[in-house]
Amino acid sequence: MSDCGKLIVVSGPSGAGKSTVISRVMEQDKSVVFSVSATTRKPREGERDGADYYFIDTERFQKMIDNGELLEYARYVDNFYGTPKAPVEENLAKGLSVLFDIEVQGAMQIRDKCPEAILIFVIPSKFSEIEKRLHARGTDSEEKILQRIRTARIEYSMALNYDYIVLNDDPDTAANEIKSIITAEKCKTANRQKYLSEVC
Amino acid sequence: MSDCGKLIVVSGPSGAGKSTVISRVMEQDKSVVFSVSATTRKPREGERDGADYYFIDTERFQKMIDNGELLEYARYVDNFYGTPKAPVEENLAKGLSVLFDIEVQGAMQIRDKCPEAILIFVIPSKFSEIEKRLHARGTDSEEKILQRIRTARIEYSMALNYDYIVLNDDPDTAANEIKSIITAEKCKTANRQKYLSEVC
Repeated sequence: MSDCGKLIVVSGPSGAGKSTVISRVMEQDKSVVFSVSATTRKPREGERDGADYYFIDTERFQKMIDNGELLEYARYVDNFYGTPKAPVEENLAKGLSVLFDIEVQGAMQIRDKCPEAILIFVIPSKFSEIEKRLHARGTDSEEKILQRIRTARIEYSMALNYDYIVLNDDPDTAANEIKSIITAEKCKTANRQKYLSEVC
Repeated sequence: MSDCGKLIVVSGPSGAGKSTVISRVMEQDKSVVFSVSATTRKPREGERDGADYYFIDTERFQKMIDNGELLEYARYVDNFYGTPKAPVEENLAKGLSVLFDIEVQGAMQIRDKCPEAILIFVIPSKFSEIEKRLHARGTDSEEKILQRIRTARIEYSMALNYDYIVLNDDPDTAANEIKSIITAEKCKTANRQKYLSEVC
């Protein structure tokens, strides 16, 4: 099919379960490619360099900023995160959609630079679930968890800038919502006018 | 789930294969109810009164217009078609979505009265397919087929007023597009603000 690729930005507070949902989408929709971000934060257990993130040091990150190699970047809880530009452009040129897992500051930068990007905010239907999941994860100190919860509250206040809110109480339902959004966006009349032009 | 019901208007020229696609959607998504239209046209083979249409005479139709019992109505190729208002209101009150199979004039009336309605136009990816299908159907005279093709061209020129264009080269793919649109519309930020209000 000749539907064009889309930029799909997915954000959500820590504990929203975004990563699991995104993995399901990537497994099930082969027209979507994951944009691997660069970050200065340390890898968590199981995370692989070049697949989950490009894990780089602050000096290299600064160089990418200086050389204009990043589509967006932001500082978030003591670390830098950014999106390398080149792979995004290569995938769009192939007609593939590119999915970005980025936080709200980065998402707003993408929206400014690419107004056609689709912004999706992932949350559980109850905020209390976020606190529960952050504690259950068991990787952060109590202080870090409280900081993440404060950050989550700020992020919620930015959610009105997003196009869609996906509810993640169950990862399969949430993945289905994201896939549905991608499909629906391709069906928008503005994206399919060429099928009318033959006749009108 | 407490997502609200939607009004989903599906139009498309004769030969677009709309009815088959709509049947698949209805089979697969039980949160959607089909709005049975009233019409003065004669039943086609296999069509059942009260399920496919309410088949009524012109006098009864005129009375429904006069009593304000129709949400919309239109004349189309010598016959009247209209949407009884009461069942729509009953289903929305139950939180169900209501799907309307109506032609472009009726769709524009629904949009005027219910600006939140979602308008979907179904077409094959090639116009030539419409002519092929109308001939293959074998139920209409050559003159009637030509009239339908002329009408189809006029309808195509109205498609830019729709929110979405669904391509029906294969009924399952088209049904999946419609289901995705319904899901995506429920995910729109404006429809899910309540999940933020707890926090913001």
